Amino acid sequence: MAIRTVIPFKPVDSKTRLSPLMTQPEREAFARAMLEDVIQAILDLGSVPTIISTHPAFTWQNAEVIVTTAGLNDALNAYFHQVQGPLLIVMADLPLASPEALERVISIRADIGIVPGRGGGTNVLFIKDPSRFRADFYGASFLKHIRIADEYGCTIQVVDSFRLHTDIDEEEDLVEVFIHGEGTSKHFLDSLGFSLVIEQGRVGISRNTHE
Amino acid sequence: MAIRTVIPFKPVDSKTRLSPLMTQPEREAFARAMLEDVIQAILDLGSVPTIISTHPAFTWQNAEVIVTTAGLNDALNAYFHQVQGPLLIVMADLPLASPEALERVISIRADIGIVPGRGGGTNVLFIKDPSRFRADFYGASFLKHIRIADEYGCTIQVVDSFRLHTDIDEEEDLVEVFIHGEGTSKHFLDSLGFSLVIEQGRVGISRNTHE
Repeated sequence: MAIRTVIPFKPVDSKTRLSPLMTQPEREAFARAMLEDVIQAILDLGSVPTIISTHPAFTWQNAEVIVTTAGLNDALNAYFHQVQGPLLIVMADLPLASPEALERVISIRADIGIVPGRGGGTNVLFIKDPSRFRADFYGASFLKHIRIADEYGCTIQVVDSFRLHTDIDEEEDLVEVFIHGEGTSKHFLDSLGFSLVIEQGRVGISRNTHE
Repeated sequence: MAIRTVIPFKPVDSKTRLSPLMTQPEREAFARAMLEDVIQAILDLGSVPTIISTHPAFTWQNAEVIVTTAGLNDALNAYFHQVQGPLLIVMADLPLASPEALERVISIRADIGIVPGRGGGTNVLFIKDPSRFRADFYGASFLKHIRIADEYGCTIQVVDSFRLHTDIDEEEDLVEVFIHGEGTSKHFLDSLGFSLVIEQGRVGISRNTHE
């Protein structure tokens, strides 16, 4: 049986910390490119993802979309009581996501699997029994989710993957997409004129804007 | 047979990008604390590491130390021709290193295993036949090592671990030590008065300096 998978997604004014580098339409298109890479990894895992979107007009070709006006945590926690069986939650800004890494997540022995984001966030959650857990995203959600698992008497296992650990928020994160990405997000950055620059041994990003 | 392991280490004026937060003696002590965590992970793997140090007076209780006046790359490349059999190279600033992650590195099928650092560096290399490889650390060494493997006709496999991907250079990296570290480095930061602070959903580090 294929694993049930959910991707929370914010289609409008996404990735604001990239504002110094991209216009709002570019940021939104980049967010969709990253979503496409995440969806592809999940399809390669053999699952058809459901997107939880905060924007009513949002549709996607190869995924079911649930539109919510509630906050992400409320929407997820309501969803946890509607579904049965294991649930995989994957953030939308993980363009390096691979089916191999996700396979390691869904193969854990513990009740809950978690992949931390950089800076204390949560990038991936795998919940064997969603009725016995509560989502608490934003801020130091990794530490919060560890506590919540404990509160419910669930075992939790941290899955060690840099591909799923690398969420893309800031300029320096784009370097990782250039070095390790092969999918839509990488090509989208290429198309905007971004490239990798190596100066004095430091790796960075530059943008070539054609007149 | 236990795997041969090497840790390059710079004992003097290490971790200069932490200068805004720590004095030089503190930075050097922190570098030694991180080295201790790396050594422990390697001992847990069943290997006794050799340290390649750039400082003549450097000794370490539970590891052989080779002192070199050459640069790191020259020292490693000379070493590659002195040893036989597989060689694991682990950077000294990986306090989240775990034996499980290192086990995945030495279990690869390819000729070379590599764990990228954040920003295009190389944190771990596993070389089955060191006479057929060349080290080229610093800068975008991950991409250079991929090219060098190709040049020697060797297959190379990227090992997906955030614990080995997280090298500690800057203030924001210390957050990762606080969230995921359990060893000497974490306790050392505690002893200096550092702690995790969560303000407006953002996770950071603060230092409490007692008069």
